[in-house]
Amino acid sequence: MSDGLWITFEGGDGSGKTTQAELLRDWFEQQGRTVVRTREPGGTEVGKTIREIVLHSRGVLGDRAEALLFAADRAHHIDTLVRPALERGDVVIQDRYLDSSIAYQGAARALGADEVRELSMWATGGALPDVTVLLDLDPAVARRRLDADDKPFDRLEAEKAEFHVRVREAFLALAAAEPERFLVVDATLPREEIQNRIRERIRP
Amino acid sequence: MSDGLWITFEGGDGSGKTTQAELLRDWFEQQGRTVVRTREPGGTEVGKTIREIVLHSRGVLGDRAEALLFAADRAHHIDTLVRPALERGDVVIQDRYLDSSIAYQGAARALGADEVRELSMWATGGALPDVTVLLDLDPAVARRRLDADDKPFDRLEAEKAEFHVRVREAFLALAAAEPERFLVVDATLPREEIQNRIRERIRP
Repeated sequence: MSDGLWITFEGGDGSGKTTQAELLRDWFEQQGRTVVRTREPGGTEVGKTIREIVLHSRGVLGDRAEALLFAADRAHHIDTLVRPALERGDVVIQDRYLDSSIAYQGAARALGADEVRELSMWATGGALPDVTVLLDLDPAVARRRLDADDKPFDRLEAEKAEFHVRVREAFLALAAAEPERFLVVDATLPREEIQNRIRERIRP
Repeated sequence: MSDGLWITFEGGDGSGKTTQAELLRDWFEQQGRTVVRTREPGGTEVGKTIREIVLHSRGVLGDRAEALLFAADRAHHIDTLVRPALERGDVVIQDRYLDSSIAYQGAARALGADEVRELSMWATGGALPDVTVLLDLDPAVARRRLDADDKPFDRLEAEKAEFHVRVREAFLALAAAEPERFLVVDATLPREEIQNRIRERIRP
């Protein structure tokens, strides 16, 4: 996708994706680059509505319906926000993408990882980021971090601990399968150290 | 799907699907059968929200995002309404299903019929109706019927005439490919005659 640069952040809730994404945005902006910060699900107006449906239909929505809604959000997000930004030469820094779908919906639930990947690739015409940063964290540590917050848990956060262990394993397997796209960083490191490793990876 | 009976009605807007579906419901109810009348898109609460997104995102939503939203609606509709009804032994009479997706989104627009079919079959685990009634009508005749109404046009109705010609051709091709599932009826016949042909087909 032209001169733009597309970086996605992956990892469980509480792994520090937002903090690291914002530090990275600052770094690019100091270099005079235009940065688009976005997220999935919910990075567009249509996507916000889709996200509401998913979050508020707990216990009602089947696995396939949920996967199709996330894929629709993704298709729209890539078409209307990510691809145009990359074509303008901007930097896109995004929380969650394909790998979250596979880890959460695929490997850790009823659907197969291959099916979820195929659905997502069809939705986006095969769009993949230049770099995916996986912030790896033991779910028990993440739980303690999140408990310190006052924020209410949403549907996915409320799933039980074993689920998050399977999600972590799925993320690590994805990273191992595509080492050229992934940078895996230990999320318990100091945040400046994490940020330095990310910048080193992107610099060339 | 067990002892239930699942009948879908297909055809362009103005072809008389609703009238015929309701006459058929009356017939089944006179026989003491429980009938579930439903539609796609929008046969469930979640589906109504999805339908609103599609209808009100004209010019914004890409072809794939739209197809994925319709597929999500379908997965949910089959899971939560159609399959349970058939398992109870009810008769399900439904306006529009798979064939509408293929005819409207597939053959007549940017996506291929095979892709749309595959997406729908994945969404539903391959669920297909016992009988599909195609009410075949020249789009120019349908246009004159619809103009007599006061109802406002929605997104799909507002598409231009040539589009509807391609939709009709796609429906007829689908019926020709699956003669054991389809009953094609000339929608310009008197409504009692159309209904008789449908009942004859279903009776055995």
